[in-house]
Amino acid sequence: MTLSKEQSLGANSVGIVTPQTMQIDTPLLLECGVSLPSHSLVYETYGELNAKKTNAILICHALSGHHHAAGFHANDEKSEGWWNELIGPDKPIDSNRFFIVCTNNIGGCHGSSGPTSINPETGEQYGPDFPIITVEDWVSSQALFSDQLGIETWAAVIGGSLGGMQAMEWSTRFPNRLKHAIIIASSPKLSAQNIAFNEVARQAIMRDPEFYEGRYFDHDAKPVNGLRVARMLGHITYLSDDMMAEKFGRDLQNRTLIDFSYDAEFAVESYLRYQGDRFADQFDANTYLLMTKALDYYDPAKAHNENLREALATAKADFLVMSFTSDWRFNPERSREIVKALQDNKLNVSYAEIDAPQGHDAFLMQIDDYIDVFQSYMNKVAV
Amino acid sequence: MTLSKEQSLGANSVGIVTPQTMQIDTPLLLECGVSLPSHSLVYETYGELNAKKTNAILICHALSGHHHAAGFHANDEKSEGWWNELIGPDKPIDSNRFFIVCTNNIGGCHGSSGPTSINPETGEQYGPDFPIITVEDWVSSQALFSDQLGIETWAAVIGGSLGGMQAMEWSTRFPNRLKHAIIIASSPKLSAQNIAFNEVARQAIMRDPEFYEGRYFDHDAKPVNGLRVARMLGHITYLSDDMMAEKFGRDLQNRTLIDFSYDAEFAVESYLRYQGDRFADQFDANTYLLMTKALDYYDPAKAHNENLREALATAKADFLVMSFTSDWRFNPERSREIVKALQDNKLNVSYAEIDAPQGHDAFLMQIDDYIDVFQSYMNKVAV
Repeated sequence: MTLSKEQSLGANSVGIVTPQTMQIDTPLLLECGVSLPSHSLVYETYGELNAKKTNAILICHALSGHHHAAGFHANDEKSEGWWNELIGPDKPIDSNRFFIVCTNNIGGCHGSSGPTSINPETGEQYGPDFPIITVEDWVSSQALFSDQLGIETWAAVIGGSLGGMQAMEWSTRFPNRLKHAIIIASSPKLSAQNIAFNEVARQAIMRDPEFYEGRYFDHDAKPVNGLRVARMLGHITYLSDDMMAEKFGRDLQNRTLIDFSYDAEFAVESYLRYQGDRFADQFDANTYLLMTKALDYYDPAKAHNENLREALATAKADFLVMSFTSDWRFNPERSREIVKALQDNKLNVSYAEIDAPQGHDAFLMQIDDYIDVFQSYMNKVAV
Repeated sequence: MTLSKEQSLGANSVGIVTPQTMQIDTPLLLECGVSLPSHSLVYETYGELNAKKTNAILICHALSGHHHAAGFHANDEKSEGWWNELIGPDKPIDSNRFFIVCTNNIGGCHGSSGPTSINPETGEQYGPDFPIITVEDWVSSQALFSDQLGIETWAAVIGGSLGGMQAMEWSTRFPNRLKHAIIIASSPKLSAQNIAFNEVARQAIMRDPEFYEGRYFDHDAKPVNGLRVARMLGHITYLSDDMMAEKFGRDLQNRTLIDFSYDAEFAVESYLRYQGDRFADQFDANTYLLMTKALDYYDPAKAHNENLREALATAKADFLVMSFTSDWRFNPERSREIVKALQDNKLNVSYAEIDAPQGHDAFLMQIDDYIDVFQSYMNKVAV
């Protein structure tokens, strides 16, 4: 007997999901000064909205993420959602209890308005003309989306990394529209080193001759090599030194001796090349540039004389902040800064520093302590 | 009155120096199996060799280094040697007391036999046909060089980073030919993360369309963009997160507000672009590839069942090992592994872990504690 895909996905999967698209015709004034007369967001939902609309959860994605957070797309066995480990029946973000919503942010390349979509004013692809987007803009767009979806108040807004910045921004901009904010492996702003890594990635893309100042699609080209280098570099920062040591060490790839060549001799080289190739195949270069800029720009304390407590003073939600000991991209110290600023505002904050070797990517993984903390906090959210 | 350059260089400079070239006609069998029938090394010397030839110091350079370690070249004010802070009259490596020698390693691009030199067998530039070189090969070449220079025993062999690996290799391969080995900011082998960074740099270069499989010179081209990205990335790993925060923070470059563009808005972006441009202008891409491979391959414990103590068992020299607290490229833990293995061999080892925020690059800098330790150890070497 052959199992159907839904059966084989097991009891704790949301199963086959279908993305939807919402057209938003309210103009959106962006931080850069440009106004988008209309925009569309592609999104997915898992679980059922209850009658009082009190069980809605908004998931905010990170740099290379999108709306497909859980389950699988029909006819694509490899299409597992990026947070499938955390979202589903009886998982921390439990689709039996919550109505879970995840949008692809504007500027993205998975169906929402962005560089790959058509500029209604010109009838042509935006490409590099799509305005540079900020975390603040994403939250503005998500708020319009919430209005139209009929969600006045989110039970929780949840995000990891760049997604955590969106959850933080929601808590201060729309304090009455969320009960809980869950900020995972995130930071109140990027360090010089973080910006530096983003800049190397951008330069790799922008100096690729196939980039054509962002108009590669007009030349039937794609800056594949630049994207590849950008992703390889990104991957190093997502993993910890220890995790790389454990996962690859100095193991050789399909050989017992070094062969004095520039092939992928070490396993870690082979892994990075694979990750780079896969990403370059799928992702849009202009979107990658935009996303890194949104990261670089986010700095809510800046307008408050570098005082993060003041920047977060309008927040009313309860908070769960989580970090991972081996995360050197956004190390626990950055999460503790957020916790301190929230506590100084006399807000309810739970903080968990998870002892995990997986580095920044830990937030995507099924790690026992992480799952436990997440699950018990979500029990509180469900009340 | 206008000061002459030597006067303006101050009393603690070795002044104007002139590189020399040594032709070595003894065949050199490389680790990769290729034999170089002859090769040449460009080198500089500072100070005078004493009658008994007991005051000679060999300096081994790192990834992008060369023979010009101290002083200045005539008619080039900007030509300060890369270790000018440490080498000179009354400096730790004192040219009043020692005869100091620094070669450009084979595979380099500053005058020694390497990818940019002419293959005597073909009459054409080697380019990518120059064999891949190892730390072991460099030490073999330096030993032939020492023979020809008439130095039987070095008072000390000294190196930082990749140079430290050469000093370590000298101590085990030619235990009777050096009295002291000084290993700074180094490691007994690269970690998976170290290799990963090197691989990203290599891929940036090799996937640059101007690379032409290493034959760019035949196409009047140069993989400038790849070299640029490689160097920008390297720079991040040479500096510490804290140092970057202190040096640049989130300061903007020549503007008070972000301007929503892909220009170098943040000071750290501007700095990295400058470093990348300067390097890409001066350095040969094939050499950069070779040097990173030499780093990746070095692993003396591998042939001894991963036992570093056994790998170092033949050493007889006295050792000074130094590391820097903020160095995350080769963190102090890696130096402590070397120290432990040397101590287990009952060798005399001094170890200093210098508290310094400058990251890996600290080994090139004039840092008080570092200078003090170095100077007092060199007093011991001078005896």
